[in-house]
Amino acid sequence: MSRSNQALHPLDPLSIEEIATASGLLREHAAGQPLKFNCVTLREPTRTEYNAWKANQAVRPDRRAYAIVLKGGSAEVATAVVNISKRKVEEWKDTDDVAPTLTLDDLDHLEINARKDPRVIEACREVGITDMSKIYVDAWAIGFDHRWGFERRLQQGLVYYRNSASDNQYAHPLDFSLVADTETAEILSVDIRRVNGERTKVPLIEHNYLPEYIGANYAVDVLRPIDITQPNGVSFQVRGNVLSWAGYEMHIGFNYREGIVLSDVSMYDHYQKRQRKLFNRISVAEMVVPYGNPDPPHHKKHAFDVGEYGTGLMSNSLELGCDCKGAIHYMDGIVATAKGEAAVIKNAICIHEEDNGILYKHTDFRDGNVISARDRRLIISQIITAANYDYAFYHIFTLDGTYKMEMKLTGMLNTYGLHPSEQAAPFGVEVAPGITAHNHQHIFSLRIDPAIDGPNNSVVQNDALASKEPVGSPENYYGNGFSCQKTPLKTPAEAAVDYNHDTSRTWDIINPNILNPSTKKPIGYKILNNNCPKLLASPDSVVSQRAAFARKALWVVPYQDYELYPAGEFVCQSTGQEGHQHNPTIVDWVARGGSIENKDIVCYMQFGLTHFARTEDFPIMPAEPVSITLRASSFFEKNPALWVPASSLNKDNTSRIAFTQSDSACCQREKQSNHPMPRL
Amino acid sequence: MSRSNQALHPLDPLSIEEIATASGLLREHAAGQPLKFNCVTLREPTRTEYNAWKANQAVRPDRRAYAIVLKGGSAEVATAVVNISKRKVEEWKDTDDVAPTLTLDDLDHLEINARKDPRVIEACREVGITDMSKIYVDAWAIGFDHRWGFERRLQQGLVYYRNSASDNQYAHPLDFSLVADTETAEILSVDIRRVNGERTKVPLIEHNYLPEYIGANYAVDVLRPIDITQPNGVSFQVRGNVLSWAGYEMHIGFNYREGIVLSDVSMYDHYQKRQRKLFNRISVAEMVVPYGNPDPPHHKKHAFDVGEYGTGLMSNSLELGCDCKGAIHYMDGIVATAKGEAAVIKNAICIHEEDNGILYKHTDFRDGNVISARDRRLIISQIITAANYDYAFYHIFTLDGTYKMEMKLTGMLNTYGLHPSEQAAPFGVEVAPGITAHNHQHIFSLRIDPAIDGPNNSVVQNDALASKEPVGSPENYYGNGFSCQKTPLKTPAEAAVDYNHDTSRTWDIINPNILNPSTKKPIGYKILNNNCPKLLASPDSVVSQRAAFARKALWVVPYQDYELYPAGEFVCQSTGQEGHQHNPTIVDWVARGGSIENKDIVCYMQFGLTHFARTEDFPIMPAEPVSITLRASSFFEKNPALWVPASSLNKDNTSRIAFTQSDSACCQREKQSNHPMPRL
Repeated sequence: MSRSNQALHPLDPLSIEEIATASGLLREHAAGQPLKFNCVTLREPTRTEYNAWKANQAVRPDRRAYAIVLKGGSAEVATAVVNISKRKVEEWKDTDDVAPTLTLDDLDHLEINARKDPRVIEACREVGITDMSKIYVDAWAIGFDHRWGFERRLQQGLVYYRNSASDNQYAHPLDFSLVADTETAEILSVDIRRVNGERTKVPLIEHNYLPEYIGANYAVDVLRPIDITQPNGVSFQVRGNVLSWAGYEMHIGFNYREGIVLSDVSMYDHYQKRQRKLFNRISVAEMVVPYGNPDPPHHKKHAFDVGEYGTGLMSNSLELGCDCKGAIHYMDGIVATAKGEAAVIKNAICIHEEDNGILYKHTDFRDGNVISARDRRLIISQIITAANYDYAFYHIFTLDGTYKMEMKLTGMLNTYGLHPSEQAAPFGVEVAPGITAHNHQHIFSLRIDPAIDGPNNSVVQNDALASKEPVGSPENYYGNGFSCQKTPLKTPAEAAVDYNHDTSRTWDIINPNILNPSTKKPIGYKILNNNCPKLLASPDSVVSQRAAFARKALWVVPYQDYELYPAGEFVCQSTGQEGHQHNPTIVDWVARGGSIENKDIVCYMQFGLTHFARTEDFPIMPAEPVSITLRASSFFEKNPALWVPASSLNKDNTSRIAFTQSDSACCQREKQSNHPMPRL
Repeated sequence: MSRSNQALHPLDPLSIEEIATASGLLREHAAGQPLKFNCVTLREPTRTEYNAWKANQAVRPDRRAYAIVLKGGSAEVATAVVNISKRKVEEWKDTDDVAPTLTLDDLDHLEINARKDPRVIEACREVGITDMSKIYVDAWAIGFDHRWGFERRLQQGLVYYRNSASDNQYAHPLDFSLVADTETAEILSVDIRRVNGERTKVPLIEHNYLPEYIGANYAVDVLRPIDITQPNGVSFQVRGNVLSWAGYEMHIGFNYREGIVLSDVSMYDHYQKRQRKLFNRISVAEMVVPYGNPDPPHHKKHAFDVGEYGTGLMSNSLELGCDCKGAIHYMDGIVATAKGEAAVIKNAICIHEEDNGILYKHTDFRDGNVISARDRRLIISQIITAANYDYAFYHIFTLDGTYKMEMKLTGMLNTYGLHPSEQAAPFGVEVAPGITAHNHQHIFSLRIDPAIDGPNNSVVQNDALASKEPVGSPENYYGNGFSCQKTPLKTPAEAAVDYNHDTSRTWDIINPNILNPSTKKPIGYKILNNNCPKLLASPDSVVSQRAAFARKALWVVPYQDYELYPAGEFVCQSTGQEGHQHNPTIVDWVARGGSIENKDIVCYMQFGLTHFARTEDFPIMPAEPVSITLRASSFFEKNPALWVPASSLNKDNTSRIAFTQSDSACCQREKQSNHPMPRL
């Protein structure tokens, strides 16, 4: 199942054996001190190493692991780099003021312990619950709690009731939450929210969605099957982790933190007859879900699902039929357990193609000549479960050179009970009697490390502006003039920008060294992102400090090896403090300055939505899509998809309008076919 | 093929026989004066008539036709209402200051006449073209030309060259344009644009896209087939023009002007066990494509493709395979010719279903229980050709009660030649050497006549706002508070509003008379529209006057029978003059005032995009989508699609993470099935 190191692509995730080797070397290095492995993941080659290998594949970078470990059951953290090829620990760094990702191992014990905790038992008894097997606890990162600092790894527990093992607990939220020590499993606090001194009763009405509850009401004959088949198989080729499809080439990686990582993405140019680089690396590097109810304990709900839990660790195993249709190619995801052993998430990544409707169409109104071609899309996807919410990540490529990151939000609303004296508004919506779902936002950070036809790029801001010349002036006599104001973003500080709806703002990532032969302007890729809600938390708030990345729609910084996470590498319990030695964030990278003009740059693009819940989102949410798009912007000389065979060339012989009477204004012309050599 | 009047739904388009009857009656009425029929179309019943029929189908409104006619080869216009059931002309109104839609008949002669016109021949000869059969003219509405008023029906001609009959003329634009009289076919003016006194040479390089030119370069083996089949047929039923699908019911109409019209749209509520009305009527009632180059003659390019040409008249006949996949149901479109005869556009409307990915999904992280269901979408579509551009209109309904209007823009850029002394920037982009494509916008007006669970509705504006209370205050101690500010729009003037990106603005169309039992707030449908570019033409410009509807993202006015077109019924040569007796626009309807609270109201929602051309858009544009969405907003008590059978309930027996070693923290729990009666 595994291949020799020689066969591995330098960006391939660590193999099962490599993880074992790396953790063995780290245990040796620790010399008897017990280690709890928080992560053991690929240490990607540096840009320099990778480029050297690309130029000459004999120059192979050593395989390396990056690990975060916790020492001896404590909250003390060390980070390490292991050279697997040379079998040695190359770096070991102790840090004492950070808290790493909460793994599933870390989050496993709270529910079990809570059921046995006398304070929890009493808190439940007070609202009439005595069967503790019906108490369920979703363990979350602490968010922020002023009562503790970095001496402990903390987590909070949101408490629910189930009437039976598969009953929907989000219909039965309890009015208290827990704080626990992740390492000792100790429950530090049981925080009961009393309203006018009273407890809030658990809403007991069931709101279920599983087939065992509602299956008898399924309308089974209403939707007839739609079969999607690919009799000749898929149109993509996968060699190891390298995928080729319709001229695209890319490496598909996976890690515990970001989940899917697309690297070295290029596209074949049929005019220039060469593969042209687009992106060094694409991933969803962070996200935040701040909740907008200011009453404690809800202020602690601002989940950074990438940084606090790991998109990779939360990945679903995907199954044909329920997640995607057609011919599917799956890839497994490999992560590490607390013991430093490999764990395989079967079918963590789904790769499939879909028909994508019209690629282009035109009808000549004179003679009814119709040309059209069909578009196709390649989708590389994963689905994660973050306690109540489920997120489906779709990396989508289409034949016209467009990349789209689409997120579908589904799963369950985070819910809370209402005391009879309370109303859900203005900070929530009563989605079922006595149950409120708090206002929240989902803000994702798409990290694009561009290489638009070469290593050095710039970013230009585009604003559609009306002509400033008055109506009646020679420059704008009829008043219809408008143009695109192009503002080069020269420094990271200048490039920390918002979307502007009034100017239909977009951004071009350009390669200033290569001019399009027609436009005589630099080639580029355009960022289309009008789905970037403003972070609604106060600029002085904890959320705004911790999720500083979410303050702007776009950030652009100079590339640095291993600078990946805009809310910091260590997001759990972070304060967002600027200048943190072990945990710099996007704010620090911006403050560092430097030029981003014609340089190796990285863009962080925020997109998402503000969610005021609807009753339709309960008890399980219809998938809500939100996306961000990058499309070729005079990157190719022409429509790059003219190689796609036309669906058919219809000469509409029934005539465009089939006149029922003798009237016939329609002039059918014979097509001539004495044309020069075909050329694109 | 036709049905008796008794069988017709009151909203069914006029049949072939009805058109003949109506035009016969009008000819009789005109008593020998020759008539040119501009339109003969269904006069829909009034709201009162329709509601009476809905209540008691024995109370059948008379079938009526509405016609616009031109009298005796002149530009004199009359509008008429013909009662077909009673066989009499009920209304006849002469108007002398309006110009009706340009039909295909109207636009047919300019190219033919231009080739014979000595001034055109000379203008071509001067740039070296002597074979006039290679000259092609796209006839457009005049836009605006100060040299003529309403005494003539005008059109302008944009002139191109083809090297052969199927050569792409948009690669060879000429530097002059024509103005012609639509009725007399006289060419009134040949307007040559000289730059520094010089003509601009015709760009002669070919840029073709048809298979006969580039087919030899098709990469035929790259994309393997994706077959979409529906072995048991479609899931919708069509009876006449009434469609039922997955609980939705609606009437599908078609007319020369708006093309597809969806009426009486309702959805079955599985909780209330009743059909609930959503919309009285949906259509794309207007659109404008203003070009942003202020230099004459380009200021005249602002195409109102619905009002000036008729979406119905420009409809393509659709063909399986090139336009949609799967099992397709087509409907023909019936329009009238200048002679008052029916003309059938075969397969003008396509109705089909598509798989729509995940409807919902949730995984219980504890036990790996997975639930997911697949969404489906019903798509009612048409594709029009407006000279160079092609627009695909998709009315999309999904199982969660969402309606989306998606427009895909494809076809050809409008192009113009560049004189060697000129640059394309700032008002255009040089998409091929010597060829500029001017900046332009596409702004569509979606007319929604809502009836959210009843006839009387209101509109509320939603703005996501941060709490105004400072961090540290008891009301917002941690600064995370935010809520949705709801502003009722009480009058048409108040409801003339823009999108606000900073507040993620949406609007709810609510029924204030019906409260959601959980939220205790009015039920509603939410308008999601962040694709509404600001009209960039100056507020004083001709465009802004003529396309006043495009100045705002939303308008809401009281319902009035036969008030349909926000840029006026007569858009050709309109000036947008306020208070025009025969041609009121949205501005007049707003000025009229009235309450829009808990009333029968109509919403006009603008959406679209600003298009700075890319070389990728040449020679034929990859389809660019833009959409607007209306989704249930606490309209249903719960997720309305829980009746959809789950794809499968997977108990992931390989365990969520397949541990490769002995480690197994994963607790598999047996599902219990002793549950109460299934209920939704």
